[in-house]
Amino acid sequence: MVGSVGNGLMDLCHKGKVEPLPKEFDPTDIVEPMPAVDLESLGGDEGSGKNREIVLGRNVHTMCFTIKEPEVDDEVTGEREAYMASVLARYRRSLIERTKHHLGYPYNLDFDYGALAQLQHFSINNLGDPFIESNYGVHSRQFEVGVLDWFARLWELEKNEYWGYITNCGTEGNLHGILVGREVFPDGILYASKESHYSVFKAARMYRMECVKVDTLISGEIDCIDFKAKLLQNKERPAVINVNIGTTVKGAVDDLDMVIQTLEENGFKGRFYIHCDGALFGLMMPFVKRAPKVTFKKPIGSVSVSGHKFVGCPMPCGVQITRLKHIDVLSSNVEYLASRDATIMGSRNGHAPIFLWYTLNRKGYRGFQKEVQKCLRNAHYLKDRLKEAGIGAMLNELSSTVVFERPKDEEFVRRWQLACEGNISHVVVMPNVNIDKLDSFLEELFQKRSCWYQEGMMSPPCIAADIGQENCFCVLHKK
Amino acid sequence: MVGSVGNGLMDLCHKGKVEPLPKEFDPTDIVEPMPAVDLESLGGDEGSGKNREIVLGRNVHTMCFTIKEPEVDDEVTGEREAYMASVLARYRRSLIERTKHHLGYPYNLDFDYGALAQLQHFSINNLGDPFIESNYGVHSRQFEVGVLDWFARLWELEKNEYWGYITNCGTEGNLHGILVGREVFPDGILYASKESHYSVFKAARMYRMECVKVDTLISGEIDCIDFKAKLLQNKERPAVINVNIGTTVKGAVDDLDMVIQTLEENGFKGRFYIHCDGALFGLMMPFVKRAPKVTFKKPIGSVSVSGHKFVGCPMPCGVQITRLKHIDVLSSNVEYLASRDATIMGSRNGHAPIFLWYTLNRKGYRGFQKEVQKCLRNAHYLKDRLKEAGIGAMLNELSSTVVFERPKDEEFVRRWQLACEGNISHVVVMPNVNIDKLDSFLEELFQKRSCWYQEGMMSPPCIAADIGQENCFCVLHKK
Repeated sequence: MVGSVGNGLMDLCHKGKVEPLPKEFDPTDIVEPMPAVDLESLGGDEGSGKNREIVLGRNVHTMCFTIKEPEVDDEVTGEREAYMASVLARYRRSLIERTKHHLGYPYNLDFDYGALAQLQHFSINNLGDPFIESNYGVHSRQFEVGVLDWFARLWELEKNEYWGYITNCGTEGNLHGILVGREVFPDGILYASKESHYSVFKAARMYRMECVKVDTLISGEIDCIDFKAKLLQNKERPAVINVNIGTTVKGAVDDLDMVIQTLEENGFKGRFYIHCDGALFGLMMPFVKRAPKVTFKKPIGSVSVSGHKFVGCPMPCGVQITRLKHIDVLSSNVEYLASRDATIMGSRNGHAPIFLWYTLNRKGYRGFQKEVQKCLRNAHYLKDRLKEAGIGAMLNELSSTVVFERPKDEEFVRRWQLACEGNISHVVVMPNVNIDKLDSFLEELFQKRSCWYQEGMMSPPCIAADIGQENCFCVLHKK
Repeated sequence: MVGSVGNGLMDLCHKGKVEPLPKEFDPTDIVEPMPAVDLESLGGDEGSGKNREIVLGRNVHTMCFTIKEPEVDDEVTGEREAYMASVLARYRRSLIERTKHHLGYPYNLDFDYGALAQLQHFSINNLGDPFIESNYGVHSRQFEVGVLDWFARLWELEKNEYWGYITNCGTEGNLHGILVGREVFPDGILYASKESHYSVFKAARMYRMECVKVDTLISGEIDCIDFKAKLLQNKERPAVINVNIGTTVKGAVDDLDMVIQTLEENGFKGRFYIHCDGALFGLMMPFVKRAPKVTFKKPIGSVSVSGHKFVGCPMPCGVQITRLKHIDVLSSNVEYLASRDATIMGSRNGHAPIFLWYTLNRKGYRGFQKEVQKCLRNAHYLKDRLKEAGIGAMLNELSSTVVFERPKDEEFVRRWQLACEGNISHVVVMPNVNIDKLDSFLEELFQKRSCWYQEGMMSPPCIAADIGQENCFCVLHKK
């Protein structure tokens, strides 16, 4: 090869002397023998906790479904088809079971997209910009722009003033928002509360931005007194701020108005860019009274929300909306925009916009309003029942995330798929989490707890530092 | 709100005085009236070219499917359901038509995942690291790791020496590979041939890396003489190199061996990181004789390949494989890895691994080998027939991408969804592109061409600069 670059290659092509058919290629060289598969072990038992080995940075191959080279006579015997069908059937059963026992992540698992199954036969790809057609015709931009319009309207930005796209997840929204902020203020410092999603700190690392972590209140909200102090230490450089519309652990909503006020009163007017990470609550807040309104009528730069959380979607996705002028500024500065692409990704999933379009159309603003009300009601029910039973718990005013003491048993945590941090754990009440499900969870928790904390044995942990003394029911703080 | 942060909020929660139900909320405030929809205009006519306005950075709302607030009596009238069903039915027809007439992008549109339709009901999410279980139970890591193993084996890296994950697209693979390279060599300069995918230059911008573009040969391969000259200008700084295993436009494969030799002979031994962008050909090359082998037995750092291209998949996805030691190094350096996440994204599509697992299992190495052979054979057929008809064309030795003169008519380009650059255009021969499809394309092209270039009128453009004199059949270079 080394000697044949350039015209040599061309000649070969031209004369048709290519030798593309590797007759000597023997697949058995690189193919493993068909492993013996214990069908009993295929999925569905991950909650059991046995034989599980979790090591950071190590390859865990305990439960993997190996890919096996088909036997030459396979089409005759049908063995392969039978094997694959059995793996899939068993996996489906495990999905049903795992979906039933799920409380910890803010994913609405209640959806029916049966009408869209017909589209799975197509390779739908919205590569590049949603507003610029590419020559690839199998796309769903018509749906994507419809969804974007809906969100732009919700957040009060005119059609001809916004730009946005449907992302792969909440992280991509944050990565995009912070990148736009950095391009607007290349020497800006990134500020984010320490309870921000980890993707914010990942962005700082990726983009080589200086990042300042700001303290939080017990509720999980950003502490604007600390924010002010940190701003004043860096008065000469502009600020790029990540504002949380619902933190991951406590569901806390940063006070956008106070963040803006703090910036403007301390000499940052016209020298800041705010990205609102509304992964979960970006879509619930508009329907909650007293919530500080997220709107582009305030001096914010971008808002992102996840599509697989409150809306519910088979695969992760999200919506990112920013001001068109920022993208315009970028397009004159940024070389890569010559390719007409202001997204983070290149190829983009064209199914997600159709799922979102379908649900938004079916439910509408009114439908979401009802669901938000139901979630908040059910979250209160859960928090009240926990407290009645003497279990410390907290529920932020604008949130459906109930924070409480971490269950002592990892098995229980895994069974209900609770997200934990230190001594606390949470349940995110989504539309698919109804009273029945909460009751069955509570009953099991109360029962287990009576074993964990038998009289004279251990006591529940103190979680006053996490959720405040008034919410903690440990031995010390019990009233 | 401003005055009520902290315990104020807490009190409200505790006393149950929340007012979450926005009784005064009136959806009609933010809801558009039901627009009059002309069903005839719904999709399917994008190829017609009429009324299309494409403006960079402008919101194009010409064909968007607006989301409409359901009427209060909607459940009774059923009008909404009927509207949505009609939009979807028409969209489906347009997808069939667009899929039929598609030649320009390297997407294998020939797949049948009917057996997996049952999984669309689940919100499958492989958030974080594939090898570390999260508490979210509705995932498909068993399938993901199976797929990763298959690729690690193909590229000859041991199970306990690799790390990887299934990405959202080829771009994410490049973003990850280059990020790993930068973390290994923080002051490294990024080198990439000027025909590299735009995501490589996007990465440089995002990561604030100095980027040096290297010239290419007529074939589209990196020019190692120019590469050497550019390396010698920056001897003191390490090199991060993007090596193309199939460029976007010409399907050219950079000579990996010569790139390594150039690095080692010029004082860069142990001071370089190579990322192989195998978006398309990463999966075809192993089956092509004479192809420079992509293998981790050579000093490369990472390889990425797209899953929706040669494999075929309803949504974009890709596979990224790197050396575990690089991730280990990262995990001690990088703060964000405390969150146990070395991927670019957070939430990750759990359906894509199952699609890949399904196809790899069904086809196996042997199946892919056959398909690669078929593609190369059909690509030769296309190139030969073009040349016989007096149309300049080029086909790289290791490629199924046929480059030829750009058709004069944009309508024709759009109809066949050809990707174009300057005076050239290309067809990427994928498994779903059979001889029949090529014949119907050729017939239409020949017919149209006889109109475009009637005697005495215009002549076809000279494309010698793009594909070489010997391949150009313009007036000047015709033999």
